[in-house]
Amino acid sequence: MTLKLENGLVQVYTGNGKGKTSAAFGLAMRALGRGLKVYVIQFIKGGFDYGELYVVKKLPGLELRAFGRGKFITSTPPSKEDVEQAQEALELALKVVNSGDYDIVVLDEINVALNLKLICVGDVLNLIKKKPEHLELVLTGRGAPKELIELSDLVTEMVEVKHPFKKGFSARKGIEY
Amino acid sequence: MTLKLENGLVQVYTGNGKGKTSAAFGLAMRALGRGLKVYVIQFIKGGFDYGELYVVKKLPGLELRAFGRGKFITSTPPSKEDVEQAQEALELALKVVNSGDYDIVVLDEINVALNLKLICVGDVLNLIKKKPEHLELVLTGRGAPKELIELSDLVTEMVEVKHPFKKGFSARKGIEY
Repeated sequence: MTLKLENGLVQVYTGNGKGKTSAAFGLAMRALGRGLKVYVIQFIKGGFDYGELYVVKKLPGLELRAFGRGKFITSTPPSKEDVEQAQEALELALKVVNSGDYDIVVLDEINVALNLKLICVGDVLNLIKKKPEHLELVLTGRGAPKELIELSDLVTEMVEVKHPFKKGFSARKGIEY
Repeated sequence: MTLKLENGLVQVYTGNGKGKTSAAFGLAMRALGRGLKVYVIQFIKGGFDYGELYVVKKLPGLELRAFGRGKFITSTPPSKEDVEQAQEALELALKVVNSGDYDIVVLDEINVALNLKLICVGDVLNLIKKKPEHLELVLTGRGAPKELIELSDLVTEMVEVKHPFKKGFSARKGIEY
């Protein structure tokens, strides 16, 4: 069975709530079940240890590359090294998107990279405008810029209604990472 | 490596936006990567064909059972058969939750089953109150009842900001199912 998407959309998962990256991985899982090919590019999570990374290897049809230096980016303006990492991620994204080899491309935390000014919104808008017709593009991260939302087809905001971290709870291995 | 959660939370993914079930599956994927055991019980999706079902078999540590008759439930009051299916799902949920054998239990679309009055909110609140300490419980579906939100620790609302289906778009194999 070779399924081919005909009308790929641009999806955005944003907001301050939980589940943005998870929704993208869940979507990838569903697509893999149909024999689609998925490429996940993580813009700022490289060097961090996430549970999902250990499952990726077990799933044929799913490729992943993570950029970043394994540190939270706090400096403004951002360091040269952080900009370089994100620019490299963007270059790979352009290559992967335009290759036509994939059905779904996830640009994980690209909104955060935009907000940190590691990459320019104009470049991302161009990537979207030139994407192959069939390709489903999924962009995640809090604070999606207005121009990106305008150009996207399906936008979901994860809203934090209740969160225990606010009460001094710390991130748990296997759940939060 | 045997990881054991110490403080399991009750998570709810609700709202009219996309990504609730996907977020739960993405969370499951992350947990599986850490060697945790996950059980997904789907309350009303049985008999429907979803891409993720084909991946479940490839992931050791993940179990899934779907209840329902493969039809959208539209009658009010609901049919006896639909109530029976959801009640069976709830009984299994109680068994799985109390077995202590799992780290994460996902009750997918349980909020919809509550709204359709296939099951009672009191029974679900009891299930939550009696869950083992270590167990992470994840409940999904639009329209989570107020009592459920009050009793939960981490609640995220997926808000639909933009949706192409409204413009006559139909669900696509590999993406929406």
